[in-house]
Amino acid sequence: MRIIRVALLGFGNAGKAFGELLIKNEQRMKEELDVKILVTGVVTGTRGAIIDEEGINLRKVIDDLTETGRFSKDTKGLCNMTTKEVIQEANYDVAIEITPLDVFTGQPALEHIIMAMKRKKHVITANKGPLAHEGKYLKALSKSQNIQFFHETTVMDGTPIFNLVEETLPFCKIQEIHGILNTTTNFVLEEMAKGKTFDEAMTEGRKRGFVEADPSLDIDGWDAAAKLMALMNVLMETNLKPQDIHRTGIGNVTAEDIAAASNEGKVIKLICKGRFEGGKPVGIVEPVSIPLKDAYASISGTSSVVSLVTDLMGTVTITEHDPEIEQTGYGIFSDLIRLIKKTQ
Amino acid sequence: MRIIRVALLGFGNAGKAFGELLIKNEQRMKEELDVKILVTGVVTGTRGAIIDEEGINLRKVIDDLTETGRFSKDTKGLCNMTTKEVIQEANYDVAIEITPLDVFTGQPALEHIIMAMKRKKHVITANKGPLAHEGKYLKALSKSQNIQFFHETTVMDGTPIFNLVEETLPFCKIQEIHGILNTTTNFVLEEMAKGKTFDEAMTEGRKRGFVEADPSLDIDGWDAAAKLMALMNVLMETNLKPQDIHRTGIGNVTAEDIAAASNEGKVIKLICKGRFEGGKPVGIVEPVSIPLKDAYASISGTSSVVSLVTDLMGTVTITEHDPEIEQTGYGIFSDLIRLIKKTQ
Repeated sequence: MRIIRVALLGFGNAGKAFGELLIKNEQRMKEELDVKILVTGVVTGTRGAIIDEEGINLRKVIDDLTETGRFSKDTKGLCNMTTKEVIQEANYDVAIEITPLDVFTGQPALEHIIMAMKRKKHVITANKGPLAHEGKYLKALSKSQNIQFFHETTVMDGTPIFNLVEETLPFCKIQEIHGILNTTTNFVLEEMAKGKTFDEAMTEGRKRGFVEADPSLDIDGWDAAAKLMALMNVLMETNLKPQDIHRTGIGNVTAEDIAAASNEGKVIKLICKGRFEGGKPVGIVEPVSIPLKDAYASISGTSSVVSLVTDLMGTVTITEHDPEIEQTGYGIFSDLIRLIKKTQ
Repeated sequence: MRIIRVALLGFGNAGKAFGELLIKNEQRMKEELDVKILVTGVVTGTRGAIIDEEGINLRKVIDDLTETGRFSKDTKGLCNMTTKEVIQEANYDVAIEITPLDVFTGQPALEHIIMAMKRKKHVITANKGPLAHEGKYLKALSKSQNIQFFHETTVMDGTPIFNLVEETLPFCKIQEIHGILNTTTNFVLEEMAKGKTFDEAMTEGRKRGFVEADPSLDIDGWDAAAKLMALMNVLMETNLKPQDIHRTGIGNVTAEDIAAASNEGKVIKLICKGRFEGGKPVGIVEPVSIPLKDAYASISGTSSVVSLVTDLMGTVTITEHDPEIEQTGYGIFSDLIRLIKKTQ
C-alpha cells in the first residue's frame, strides 16, 4: 500500500472539515485507491505545531481543538515550529495551504506554496490569495517542478470549476467568465431588497454569521475581485492582481437604487466579469441590475454561480447551493483524491 | 505517433459536427496528444457505407453530403455494408454510435454497442436509448471487457454531467437528480405562457425547428424520461427503463393551468426527478409549477439544466445555454479526447 504524507499549513474550520473526511474515508481510500494518508504535520499561527512522521492522531487533535480550543499538552509531537520551518524541514509529500487570506498581497500563503514547490512537494490550496496574485507563475512553477498543484476550493468550495475545465472541457478556450462569488454582499443586497437599510442588513448579517467583524473586504468587492482573479489567472491565463481591475463595492448602493431596480422587475447583485477587450484582459466587479427572470437573480444566501463562455461548448453555468464548511473540506479532499489518481 | 481508428455508426448532423471538430483539431491533437485519428468506417442507414483502412477523407465526405445529400460515387471505399457488418468486420479501435434513437427499446443502437464491446472495441455513444434501457449492463460489460465507454452527449450535449461526476466529484454518492431536459416541451410551455394555445405553440415550434414532425415522444415525456433513465442508470446505478417510471407529458396542460400558475407567480415546466424512496429508485417526469424566482424558471428555449444532490458536496447544478449542433459534436469529441487520455 502506498503511503502519502500530508502537511496541513493552517488548521481552522476548513482544515477540521477536511480532517473529518480523511477519517471517515480512511478504509475506502485503502480499498479503492490502495493508499494510506498519514498527516505528518499540522501547523497553526497561534496554537503551535504537531510533527509526527508516524502519523498524527487526527481524531484526538480535532476533538481536543473542539473541546478546548487548543492542542492538548500530551499530544505526541507537539512543538513550536513555525509554518516556514515545517514547510522546509518536515517529511511530507503534499502541503495543504489553508492559512488565512491576505487579499492585498496573497502572503504569507504565496511564499508557503513557493517554498513547498521548490522542495518538489505537491501543493493543494484553499487560499485564493496566491492564485489571485501569482496564479500564472504558480502554475508554471508547478509544471517546471513536475509536481501537482490543485486549488479547487479557492472558488466555490468543492464545486468543480478548475477541475471542470481541466478534466471535462478539453480543447475548450475560456473566452469570458461571469459570476456571483461573494456571499456577504449577496446577503446584504437581498436584505435591502426586503426593505432593510444597509446598516440593518449588516447587523442582521453579523447575527447570522454572513458578515465578518471587518466587513470591508467583502463590501468593497475585494473578496469577489480575488476570486475573479483566481479564475482568470488560471482559466484565461491572465496575469492580474485584485488591484488591477475595475472594482466597485456595494457601499454606495442605496435603498432608492434597489427600489428603482425593483420597479423595473430587477434586483441588484454584485457581478464579476472577466473578458478580453482588444486582446487585453479586463476584470470588472460591480453592482448590476439583473432581470428577475435571469437565473442569476435566483442566487440567494450563501449560494454562488459561475458561467464560463467557451469557444467549443458555448456557455456552461455551474451553481453551488447553500454550502456549509463541509463543502470546503470536500474541496480539499477532492483535490487530494485527484492528486492520488494523477500520481499513481 | 499513436494511430486511433474510428468507426462512425450513423452520420447525421451530429456526426458531421463531430467530423468538423476532428478536421479542425487534427494538428493540435498530434501536437498535444501525439495521436492521429483515422476514420476508417462511416456507415449510414440509407446512404451506404465507406470503409477505408488508410483513413476516409472526411472533408470530401462532409462536403459531398452537404452539397448533394449523398456520398459521391467516386468516394474511395464506398460500399453497401450494413451497420452490423461494419461493427463485426471493420478495422477500428473506437465505435461511435450515433444512429437514430428508439426510445422504447434502445435498439438497434443497444445491439450495436454490445457487438462492438464484445469485439473489445471502445465505445462512445450520443444515443441515450441504450443507457436508458441497459445502462447498468453496458457499464458492467465495458468493465469486464476492459474497454472505455463514454456517453456524455446522451444528456445535454457536451455539457459535463457524467464526466463531471466521474472526474470532479470523487467519492460523492448521487442521492437525487432533478432537471429540465426536453427542449420541445420547454418551448411549447413558454409560448403558451405568452398567450398562445397549445396548437399555436406547436405550429410556431415546427416553424422554428423545435418541434419534430412526430412530436409525441417529446410532448408525452418519453424523451425526458429516456434522459432521466440514462442519468439514473449510470449515476445512481439503477436498472430502470423509460416505461418503468411515472411519466406525465404536457398534452393536458391547459391555458387555464398556465394562467393559474402565473397568478401565483409561477411557471409550468416539465420537470424530471430521480430519487430513492425506501431504498427503491423512483423516477418522475411531470409538469410542475415553479416559482418565478427559482433558477429553473429561467431555463428557456433550448437550454437545459441538471441538479445533482450529493452526500459530500451538497447540491451542484449545471446549465447548458442555447446549444446548437456544434455542442453535440463537441460532446462526442470531448469523449474521444478523454478516451485518448485514459488509454495512453
